[in-house]
Amino acid sequence: MIRADLTEKLLDIKREKGWTWKYICDEIGGFSPVLIVGALLGQHKLTKPQAAKAGELFGLDKAETAMLNEVPMRGADAVIPPTDPLIYRFYELVMVNGPAWKALIEEEFGDGIMSAIDFDMVMERQPDPKGDRVKISMSGKFLPYKYYGATGNVPAYGFKEE
Amino acid sequence: MIRADLTEKLLDIKREKGWTWKYICDEIGGFSPVLIVGALLGQHKLTKPQAAKAGELFGLDKAETAMLNEVPMRGADAVIPPTDPLIYRFYELVMVNGPAWKALIEEEFGDGIMSAIDFDMVMERQPDPKGDRVKISMSGKFLPYKYYGATGNVPAYGFKEE
Amino acid sequence: MIRADLTEKLLDIKREKGWTWKYICDEIGGFSPVLIVGALLGQHKLTKPQAAKAGELFGLDKAETAMLNEVPMRGADAVIPPTDPLIYRFYELVMVNGPAWKALIEEEFGDGIMSAIDFDMVMERQPDPKGDRVKISMSGKFLPYKYYGATGNVPAYGFKEE
Amino acid sequence: MIRADLTEKLLDIKREKGWTWKYICDEIGGFSPVLIVGALLGQHKLTKPQAAKAGELFGLDKAETAMLNEVPMRGADAVIPPTDPLIYRFYELVMVNGPAWKALIEEEFGDGIMSAIDFDMVMERQPDPKGDRVKISMSGKFLPYKYYGATGNVPAYGFKEE
Amino acid sequence: MIRADLTEKLLDIKREKGWTWKYICDEIGGFSPVLIVGALLGQHKLTKPQAAKAGELFGLDKAETAMLNEVPMRGADAVIPPTDPLIYRFYELVMVNGPAWKALIEEEFGDGIMSAIDFDMVMERQPDPKGDRVKISMSGKFLPYKYYGATGNVPAYGFKEE
Amino acid sequence: MIRADLTEKLLDIKREKGWTWKYICDEIGGFSPVLIVGALLGQHKLTKPQAAKAGELFGLDKAETAMLNEVPMRGADAVIPPTDPLIYRFYELVMVNGPAWKALIEEEFGDGIMSAIDFDMVMERQPDPKGDRVKISMSGKFLPYKYYGATGNVPAYGFKEE
Amino acid sequence: MIRADLTEKLLDIKREKGWTWKYICDEIGGFSPVLIVGALLGQHKLTKPQAAKAGELFGLDKAETAMLNEVPMRGADAVIPPTDPLIYRFYELVMVNGPAWKALIEEEFGDGIMSAIDFDMVMERQPDPKGDRVKISMSGKFLPYKYYGATGNVPAYGFKEE
Amino acid sequence: MIRADLTEKLLDIKREKGWTWKYICDEIGGFSPVLIVGALLGQHKLTKPQAAKAGELFGLDKAETAMLNEVPMRGADAVIPPTDPLIYRFYELVMVNGPAWKALIEEEFGDGIMSAIDFDMVMERQPDPKGDRVKISMSGKFLPYKYYGATGNVPAYGFKEE
Amino acid sequence: MIRADLTEKLLDIKREKGWTWKYICDEIGGFSPVLIVGALLGQHKLTKPQAAKAGELFGLDKAETAMLNEVPMRGADAVIPPTDPLIYRFYELVMVNGPAWKALIEEEFGDGIMSAIDFDMVMERQPDPKGDRVKISMSGKFLPYKYYGATGNVPAYGFKEE
Amino acid sequence: MIRADLTEKLLDIKREKGWTWKYICDEIGGFSPVLIVGALLGQHKLTKPQAAKAGELFGLDKAETAMLNEVPMRGADAVIPPTDPLIYRFYELVMVNGPAWKALIEEEFGDGIMSAIDFDMVMERQPDPKGDRVKISMSGKFLPYKYYGATGNVPAYGFKEE
Repeated sequence: MIRADLTEKLLDIKREKGWTWKYICDEIGGFSPVLIVGALLGQHKLTKPQAAKAGELFGLDKAETAMLNEVPMRGADAVIPPTDPLIYRFYELVMVNGPAWKALIEEEFGDGIMSAIDFDMVMERQPDPKGDRVKISMSGKFLPYKYYGATGNVPAYGFKEE
Repeated sequence: MIRADLTEKLLDIKREKGWTWKYICDEIGGFSPVLIVGALLGQHKLTKPQAAKAGELFGLDKAETAMLNEVPMRGADAVIPPTDPLIYRFYELVMVNGPAWKALIEEEFGDGIMSAIDFDMVMERQPDPKGDRVKISMSGKFLPYKYYGATGNVPAYGFKEE
Repeated sequence: MIRADLTEKLLDIKREKGWTWKYICDEIGGFSPVLIVGALLGQHKLTKPQAAKAGELFGLDKAETAMLNEVPMRGADAVIPPTDPLIYRFYELVMVNGPAWKALIEEEFGDGIMSAIDFDMVMERQPDPKGDRVKISMSGKFLPYKYYGATGNVPAYGFKEE
Repeated sequence: MIRADLTEKLLDIKREKGWTWKYICDEIGGFSPVLIVGALLGQHKLTKPQAAKAGELFGLDKAETAMLNEVPMRGADAVIPPTDPLIYRFYELVMVNGPAWKALIEEEFGDGIMSAIDFDMVMERQPDPKGDRVKISMSGKFLPYKYYGATGNVPAYGFKEE
Repeated sequence: MIRADLTEKLLDIKREKGWTWKYICDEIGGFSPVLIVGALLGQHKLTKPQAAKAGELFGLDKAETAMLNEVPMRGADAVIPPTDPLIYRFYELVMVNGPAWKALIEEEFGDGIMSAIDFDMVMERQPDPKGDRVKISMSGKFLPYKYYGATGNVPAYGFKEE
Repeated sequence: MIRADLTEKLLDIKREKGWTWKYICDEIGGFSPVLIVGALLGQHKLTKPQAAKAGELFGLDKAETAMLNEVPMRGADAVIPPTDPLIYRFYELVMVNGPAWKALIEEEFGDGIMSAIDFDMVMERQPDPKGDRVKISMSGKFLPYKYYGATGNVPAYGFKEE
Repeated sequence: MIRADLTEKLLDIKREKGWTWKYICDEIGGFSPVLIVGALLGQHKLTKPQAAKAGELFGLDKAETAMLNEVPMRGADAVIPPTDPLIYRFYELVMVNGPAWKALIEEEFGDGIMSAIDFDMVMERQPDPKGDRVKISMSGKFLPYKYYGATGNVPAYGFKEE
Repeated sequence: MIRADLTEKLLDIKREKGWTWKYICDEIGGFSPVLIVGALLGQHKLTKPQAAKAGELFGLDKAETAMLNEVPMRGADAVIPPTDPLIYRFYELVMVNGPAWKALIEEEFGDGIMSAIDFDMVMERQPDPKGDRVKISMSGKFLPYKYYGATGNVPAYGFKEE
Repeated sequence: MIRADLTEKLLDIKREKGWTWKYICDEIGGFSPVLIVGALLGQHKLTKPQAAKAGELFGLDKAETAMLNEVPMRGADAVIPPTDPLIYRFYELVMVNGPAWKALIEEEFGDGIMSAIDFDMVMERQPDPKGDRVKISMSGKFLPYKYYGATGNVPAYGFKEE
Repeated sequence: MIRADLTEKLLDIKREKGWTWKYICDEIGGFSPVLIVGALLGQHKLTKPQAAKAGELFGLDKAETAMLNEVPMRGADAVIPPTDPLIYRFYELVMVNGPAWKALIEEEFGDGIMSAIDFDMVMERQPDPKGDRVKISMSGKFLPYKYYGATGNVPAYGFKEE
C-alpha cells in the first residue's frame, strides 16, 4: 500500500457516504481543516488520536490507520506547473509577485525567509455585493539567515587547521 | 530597450542613491507597495501619473517613462521552480497545500477559482516574542465556472445546425 | 477509483453501445456539448440532475454518479505540448498569435485578461466549396487587473504599521 | 541583426512616438491587425508593399524593411507554458477543453484537423452590463487525414518490390 | 480498455501466431502499410471494413473492433526526443536540416507549410553494392498561410466596431 | 566569433543584396542546396573551395572563410520540440509515424537503422490541380546493428580473463 | 505482455535460481556478454537460436521466446540524465569530454561520426596495486558525412525543375 | 549592472592580482569563508562593514559596494542537475540518501525539517594515509511542522463563520 | 517483482508490526542506519548476512531476500528537484552553496572531487535551548583529477600512430 | 571575462593562424590531447607551466593565462541530450548499454563505480578495409561503495546518543 492508494480509498468512502469535508473535519477535530484535508489527501500527517478517529470513521484497518500518522513524501505526484485552474492561480500569484514580496520582506526584516513550516493559515468567505471573495490570511515565522562565523570562534578561512 | 534593461537601470539608480523601497513608494504613491515595486521590477504597469512621478524621481526619458505605463510580459525570466529560498517557500506552500485549498474552496463556493486578477493583498509585520512573523492577508474574488448552454438557447449537440 | 478509471469505463460503454456524443449530449442535456463531453472526459463536473441522467444512461453505481458531480483535477494527464495533431494546432495558434492578442486586447481594454472561467464557446460547421471549415466563436468576460491601494485606505509602504 | 532586434527597435519607436497599434495598422493596412501586429512582433511576414509602408512609417533602412517581408522563425523565444496571465488563459482553454474539441470535431468531420494555417480570426468587444466581453471568432479549414494507398495503386506491404 | 491495452494485445497475438506485418497488411488491405501498422500501433484509425477484417483476423470482440475505427490520441506515450536509435535518426534529420528545409521551401512556395495531414509516403529497399539503402519518398500538400483581411472587408484595427 | 555570429552576418548581407538562396547556391555550387544552405545556417561545413567562393561572394575575411570550412556544433540553438510550424510538421511526422517506420524497416532489413550521415535528399515541387505539393525523396544507407562476439573470438562473458 | 514485463520475469528467475550473468551468457553463447545481458534487459534482440536457448534455460513460452528475438524500443524507460551513479559516470564523461572528442576525431577523420551501430566493445578487469581498474575498449566504424550533390548530377538549386 | 556582472568583475580582479580565497576572506573577515566566498559569487550578502572592506580591497565604486550588501536572487543561473562533477557529487548524495535521511530525522525529531537558513557548516581537511578526506560538519535547527488549529481557537471547518 | 514492490512490502510490514527504524537497524546490524534504511528503501544493497537477517525479520522468501543483496538502480523514482520539504532543504544547500564549496575545496585540494562513493556520514541530535539541531558530519575521500599523459609515455597528439 | 569568452578567443586565433589541434598540443605538451583540447575548450585546467606555454603561443595576457590554470565550471553550456550527431552517438551508447554495463561491472567488482576522475583514455585510428574505425580505450579506477559502520565503531541506530 502506498499513500496514494489510501487517499483513493478515503475519497471512495467519502463519495459513497456522501460526506462533506466539513463533516469529516468536525469528526476528526483538533487541527485546522486545511491540515486535516491535506493529511487525508496525503500531504500531511494526523496525530495518533486523530488517526484513530479517522480510522474509526472510515473503517480502516490497523496499517491504514498507522499510515495516516506517518509523514508522507510531500508533493509526490504534484504537477508543476499545476494544470488545475484553481491551483494555478495561486502559483501565478507567486510567479508574478514573488520578486516584489522578496524586495519588501527583505527591506522590512533583513535577509531571511518566511517559514513554510512554522506557518498557519485561515480561509474565510468574504461576502461582497460584487461577488463573494475568498479571503486567506496566513502568517509564517520570519527566519533570518544565520551568518555564522561572525562571533570569532570560527576561523576566517575555508579549512580548519589541524 | 526591453523591460529588463529598464529594471536594471532603476535598480542601479536606487542603489546609487541609497533609496529604500518605502521612500520610492511614498514618492510614487497611489498603489499598494507590492504593486509599485512589482511594476518597477517589470511585473506590473504604473498609471500615467505614477509613471510620470517615477520618471521624474529616477530621471527617465520619455520612452522609459512610457514603458513603465505599459503592461509587461509578466513572468518573463521567471525561474520555475523558483531557486531563491524566500520565493520558493511560497511556491512550496502552493504545491503542498494546493489540493486541500481546492477541496475546501470548492466545497464552500462550488466550481470556480479565486481570481488572481481581481485580487488584493496586505503584508504586515506581526511582533511575536518567539520571533516576529510575516502576516499576509489576501482576498480574491471568487469566479464561478460558467456552465453556458444551460438556458436552452444552445443546441444540445456539438455543432450548430445551419 | 480515480477519475481516469471512470472516463475509461464511460468510453468502453459508449464504444460497446455504438453511441455518438450527440446522442449522449441529447440524453444528458442542459449544457453545451463541449462541457458535457469535457465532463465525461474528466475535465468538468456535471450538475447533480445531469449526473443522475448520465448515471442512468451508463448504468453507473452511486459512487460513480457522485464522481461525475465532483470538480475534477483539471488538466491531469495533459501532455504539454500536446502531441495529438488536432489539439496541437490550437496550441500553435496560442503560441504564434499570443503576443499579438495580448497587444490588441490590452490596447482596447487596458490591463487585464479574458476570463477562461466566465467563458462560452460554440462550434459550427461552415460549409465552404473549397473545403468545409470549423468555426469557433468564443467570448470571455474581460477581467481588469485590480490595482488596489489606489483609494487611499492602504498605506503607501510595504508593511502596515502596528 | 536578428528578428528580435528589429522587434525591439519597432517597439522603441512606437513608444517614443506614442503611437497606438490601431494607428500603425491603419497606416500599413491590407491585413487584419492580428496579422500586422504579429508581423511587427516577429511572428508573421508582411507583404512587400506593406513592408515598404512600415519601413517608411518607422524610418527603417533597406535591410530592416526586407526583414519584415521574410517569414520569421515562428515561436522563437516563446515560453512554454506561457507565464503571462493574458496568454496563459488561452493556453488553459486548450489544455482543459482540447480533448472535448477533439471528440466533437472528429465526430462531425471525421479524422483530421482544423488548420492553423488556412485560418482567420476576428476579435470584437462585446458590451455587457455585467462587464464587457472579449469575443473571438475564428474559422479554420478542416483538413481530413489523407489515407493514401486506398486506391489500389500502392502495394499493400511496406516495401515496393523492385 | 485504453488504446495501449489493445496495441499490447495485438502484438501478443502477432507474436503468438508468428505473423509478419506484410501478412497482416495483406489481410487487412486498402491502405499503405505505414498507415495500417500505424493504426495497429495506436497512431491512426482503420476504416470500418478494415477494422472488421482486423477484428476477424485477431479474434477481437465488438468493442475492440470499434476502437480500431476510432481516431486515437496520437503521439500518446511518445518519448521526446526519441530514445530508440532508428527513430532518433529521423528526428536528427529534422533537427539538423529543418532550418534549411524552411529556407528553401519558403523561397520556392512562399509562406506556408508542407501538410503532415494531406501527406503520403512510400518506402522502398534500394539495392546498393555498398550496402542497401532505405528510400523514402513523401509528398505533402503545400498549405499557404492565409493572410486574411487583405480583401478589404475586414476593418484595419483590432476590434470590430459595434 | 561564434558560428551564430557568422550566420547572422551572412543573412544580413543576403538581405542587403536581395539575393535568393538559388543564386547563392549557384555561385557556390558543388553540393545540393540543402547542404549549402544548411552550412550557411551553421549546420554543415563547406569544402575549402566552396568556402573560398562563399568568402568571395560575401566579402568575408580569412577567419570567417575558415569557419565555414569547420564542422559546426550541429543542432546548437535548436528548439525542441520545434516551434516553427513548417519545421514542426516534419517533427510531427516522426512522432506519429516513427513506430510504424521502425516496425516495417526492421521487418524488411533486420535490426539496424537508416543512416542520417550517409544520406541524401532531393526536394521537388509537384504540380497538382488541388494545390501543389512538396515532394521529398531521401535515401539513407541501412546500417545493421553489429552483433560482435558472434565469431567465437570474443569470450562469452563480461570480463576477459587476464 | 510488454518488454519490461519479460525483463522483470527473467530477473525474477535469475534471482530465484541464483544464477550469475556469466553462467547465463555461457549458456546462451554466441554474442559478447554486453549484448546478451543488454538483450535480456530489453535493449537488444537475440538471434533465433539464442532466443531458443534462453527460452529453454528460463522456461519461457513461445511468445516470450519470440519477444526476445524482436528488436525492442531501445532506451524505453531510460532516465535522463541517469540517476544511478555507475551509469552517471559514463554520462559525465560524455558531457565533459564530448567537445574534445569531437574536435580530435574531426581533425583526424574529417566530418562524420563514430558509429554507435557498427560498434564493438570489450570490458576487462585491469589489476592495479592502487586498486583494480575497469578497462573498456571500444571501436566504431567512422562514418563520413556524405556530401551528396558533389558529382554534378544533382542540380544546384533547391527544387528540381520539372 | 546585475549581480553576475559584479561576480565576473570580482573574479577578474582576483585572477589579475593572483589572490587566494583565503587571503580575500582574511581581509574581509567576520564570516565563515563559505559565506564570504558565496557572497562574492553572488549567493549571499555581506554586512555593510564587510562590503566596505571588500569595496576597498577590490577598488569598487559606491553602487558596486552597495550591491554586495544586497540579498541576491539566490540560485540564479544554477544548472539543475549540476553538470560540474564536484557539485554533482553533493547532489547525488541528496538524491540517493534523501529518503533515508527523511525516515531517520522524522523518527528522531517528528514531523519537520532541518533548516537551510539557521544552518552552519565547517569544512576541514582530514589527513588520511589512503588519501586525504574532505570533512564537512553541518548543523541546522530542527523546525517542527506547526500543526495550528490544535488549541481549539480555530474552528474545525474550512471557512470561518461570519 | 521490482525493487519498488519490495520496498512497499517492507514498509507495509513495518507499519503493521509498529516497528521503528531503530529496532530494524539493531536487528540487522553491521552498517550505519543511513545505509540500512537506504537499502530497505531501495537505494543500497545489504550484505548477504544482513539480507538473511532482514529476510528472517520480515518473513521474506528466497528471491526477496536475494533482491536485498542486489545493487539497485539507485535514484530510480527520484523526483528532481525534490518536492518533499525535508529533502528539498538539502538540495537547496547544494544549489546555493555549491559554487563556494567548489571554490574552497579546489583551493585547498586542487582539481578533483569529494567522493560520493568512499564516503561516510553520522547524524546526531544536538540539544540546543533555542531548539535542538540536526548535526550531520560527513567525510568523503578527495579524488584528484588524474591528468594522464603527463609522464611522457602518451603521445602528445590525438591519435596514436600505427 | 568568463571562460566561454576565452574559449571563443582561442578558437578565433587558431582559425586565424590555421593551426591544427595536433600542433597546439605539441606546443603545450605534457598531457594527453584530449585533456589539452578539453582545457582549451573550457572543460579542464592546464598546469601552470602549460598555461604559460599556451599564453605565449596564443599571446594571452596575465589574467587569461591564469584562467587557463583554473578549474572551470565543467559542463557549463552543455546541451542535454547533445544535439551534435558525433557527441550524441556516445550518449546513445550510454543510454542503450548502461544497464548492461552496470550488471556486468557489479557482478565482476561488486557494488561501486568506474571513476570518471581517476580515468584515462587513448583514441586511435584503426585502419580497416571496410572503412577505418575510431578505437577508444579507456580505463577508470574501480571505486567500491564504502559501507561504513561495518566495523562496529558506529552505533547501529540513526542518531548517536549524547
